[in-house]
Amino acid sequence: MKKIYLGLLGFGNVGSGVIKVLKTRGALLRKKLGCDLVLKKVFDKDLRSKREISLPREKLTSDINQVLNDPSIDIVIELIGGLHPAKEYVMQALNKGKYVVTANKALLAEQGKEIFDLAKQHGKTIYFEASVGAGIPIIKSLREGLAADRFRRIFGILNGTSNFILSAMSESQVDFSQALAQAQKNGFAERNASLDIRGIDSLHKLIILVYLCFGKLVNLNDVFVDGIEHISLLDIIYARELGYQIKLLAIAQKEGFELELRVHPTLIPQGHLLAQVRGINNAIYVSADLVGDLLFFGPGAGKVAAASAVVSDLQDAVLDLQSGLFRRKFTAIEDKSIKRLRSIDQTYCRYYIRFMVIDKPGVLAAISGVLAKFDISIASVTQKERKRSKAVPIVMIIHEVKEKNLRQALIKIESLKVIKESPVAIRIEQI
Amino acid sequence: MKKIYLGLLGFGNVGSGVIKVLKTRGALLRKKLGCDLVLKKVFDKDLRSKREISLPREKLTSDINQVLNDPSIDIVIELIGGLHPAKEYVMQALNKGKYVVTANKALLAEQGKEIFDLAKQHGKTIYFEASVGAGIPIIKSLREGLAADRFRRIFGILNGTSNFILSAMSESQVDFSQALAQAQKNGFAERNASLDIRGIDSLHKLIILVYLCFGKLVNLNDVFVDGIEHISLLDIIYARELGYQIKLLAIAQKEGFELELRVHPTLIPQGHLLAQVRGINNAIYVSADLVGDLLFFGPGAGKVAAASAVVSDLQDAVLDLQSGLFRRKFTAIEDKSIKRLRSIDQTYCRYYIRFMVIDKPGVLAAISGVLAKFDISIASVTQKERKRSKAVPIVMIIHEVKEKNLRQALIKIESLKVIKESPVAIRIEQI
Repeated sequence: MKKIYLGLLGFGNVGSGVIKVLKTRGALLRKKLGCDLVLKKVFDKDLRSKREISLPREKLTSDINQVLNDPSIDIVIELIGGLHPAKEYVMQALNKGKYVVTANKALLAEQGKEIFDLAKQHGKTIYFEASVGAGIPIIKSLREGLAADRFRRIFGILNGTSNFILSAMSESQVDFSQALAQAQKNGFAERNASLDIRGIDSLHKLIILVYLCFGKLVNLNDVFVDGIEHISLLDIIYARELGYQIKLLAIAQKEGFELELRVHPTLIPQGHLLAQVRGINNAIYVSADLVGDLLFFGPGAGKVAAASAVVSDLQDAVLDLQSGLFRRKFTAIEDKSIKRLRSIDQTYCRYYIRFMVIDKPGVLAAISGVLAKFDISIASVTQKERKRSKAVPIVMIIHEVKEKNLRQALIKIESLKVIKESPVAIRIEQI
Repeated sequence: MKKIYLGLLGFGNVGSGVIKVLKTRGALLRKKLGCDLVLKKVFDKDLRSKREISLPREKLTSDINQVLNDPSIDIVIELIGGLHPAKEYVMQALNKGKYVVTANKALLAEQGKEIFDLAKQHGKTIYFEASVGAGIPIIKSLREGLAADRFRRIFGILNGTSNFILSAMSESQVDFSQALAQAQKNGFAERNASLDIRGIDSLHKLIILVYLCFGKLVNLNDVFVDGIEHISLLDIIYARELGYQIKLLAIAQKEGFELELRVHPTLIPQGHLLAQVRGINNAIYVSADLVGDLLFFGPGAGKVAAASAVVSDLQDAVLDLQSGLFRRKFTAIEDKSIKRLRSIDQTYCRYYIRFMVIDKPGVLAAISGVLAKFDISIASVTQKERKRSKAVPIVMIIHEVKEKNLRQALIKIESLKVIKESPVAIRIEQI
């Protein structure tokens, strides 16, 4: 039986998962592919740390050239993560005529153009199912499943760590730092969870989805991002009293000839499917003109889940490789009706706002006076009972407002003497 | 540019959708596929009915041979539905060396073996994305996305019409026949909705999903099916009071070396994602050992949604066709750990049961006495207020019970003099 040789870069969590799946599912894959997948070399710069899975010494190397310069290796699986040296390795692999499978969302989101261009030059596709939603087959569905659709909107919960934290805060009534510690203890957050909780990981994934749906590789810095590190238990409780859950959403939507992109915490009505997404799960909504509104839901993290996606990419790579000259080459088709990105200032949203005020007459009048000046209309207002502290929370839901107006109003309100803390404003998405 | 010629069988709803998509998305598909899709002939035995979309007369034919015997036609799209003559046409098309795309779930579920075998003989794959979940890319996800996974369970809401009816009953408090009329008025149910409401359509789709997940083409008659035609508004209301929605579920799950398959109405806890699936939407849960639990959600009906799936199949067929000798051939891998189907008698479930009784002392004692004899344990019981009628409803939730025991107990109870109607028993799924 024909053998296809694999080189794996990065013997970490997902790498171990892939090795395990290749080992235990060899027979199944042989039947499906009609060939043997042989893991020839595993590269990692650290070969000393103990792993769950052991490999014969001759398969391991800390010399990248033993993978990249081995002409027998057909497919390189990049699971190092981060920009460098992952990028250099991927580019070299492509230049050596190898097929590349990667789970690296940061790399594709930030340096995708060069990589996709180089792959195209070599007549190849880059396979990256594991980069978004772990094992959820969202990349394949967008690339191949919705062949004739035009996309209106794609949004969802793209980061398992943040969703675990927000769920834990809501379910166990703990504050952010306790929930983060719990996530770390369970292996759902890295020691440095900064990319996750600041929304950057969600943004990377959003950029990849936008590339697939609209054919545009957007610059990271052009997108508004707000993370969950400032979400307080208080707001989660108040939101719930009002019938909402707080979730970190990544959103892309066409508005006329503009594309609106943003990542931020969002109040979602309890009854909505997205509000039910708990723990490390992800959920991605796709709104397309033929197929309608689809939702893809599943674990957004986990080494075996990600390994499932990597191996499905391997299957595609093998099929393409076997088709030789006739292999398919995926092309992201640009939606030319989109002329520019919409600036966050120009977006409209409903809002949940919490003011911490001194409890004395005239406070509400002062706040609502400023809001009125900026043409901001209040949908509901609740003054919460006084606690031991001197400040009293006033929680408002306001009707759809232009971002810019709200920002200006909040600055004005914050300068009022009766306001004790910076107001908290969280978007309420109409979904 | 290379041209690929298509023959379409069935100028109905979905057929019109496909024609429209091919017309309006020609440029997009050309870019994606690198070739022109040319609709050469459309066959329908009825060419007189008025359609939304018009075609040049020379493209239309009521002579099937003009499609099947035209050597220039590369791909045949079968959208006639039903077993005959759809089966004969598909077999002939394969024998003529053509690629076949079909949306025909009845055909694949009931006669799939012959068709898949013949396709295999000719070295071809059958494409049938539109057969389950309209435009939801569930077939592609199972066939290609979860390449290395082993499946534990797949279940969900597979019939849009039934779900529309149950949703309408629950939301508008109308009875079954009113809800059915509403579905028909909205074009969500055919004049003869029998296949939908009796659960047969769900069963067809379940058989296809089971084939993909477990590599077995199960005989229709070996599966327990119960439809929604006997679901009363009363039970929908009582279920809701208890915190449940009633949904028509199709379920496949591995239990040791048995495969348990069933289609029936089910009580689902309000908080569960499936309980939130309204209208014509479908939702499919997949539980696999690597990827974890996935949910696919989207419209389960609609001609344009189905057309989206057909065109995505066309894309795959074209790529395979262009790969010539190297085309991929999908193989459903049989799960050999499954030795037999579990008989419905041997399944275990929790139950919602409604008895209509004469309101007099000792009734509850009589019923619960019989239940106790069959070792059936009651989780909760509510006697509803007496209405104008003479019979009073007693609603019970009972703990997990062996189907056979429950059936026997219900027969015994029905024979009691105080019982005025056949008891209503609806499963409560642990999901």
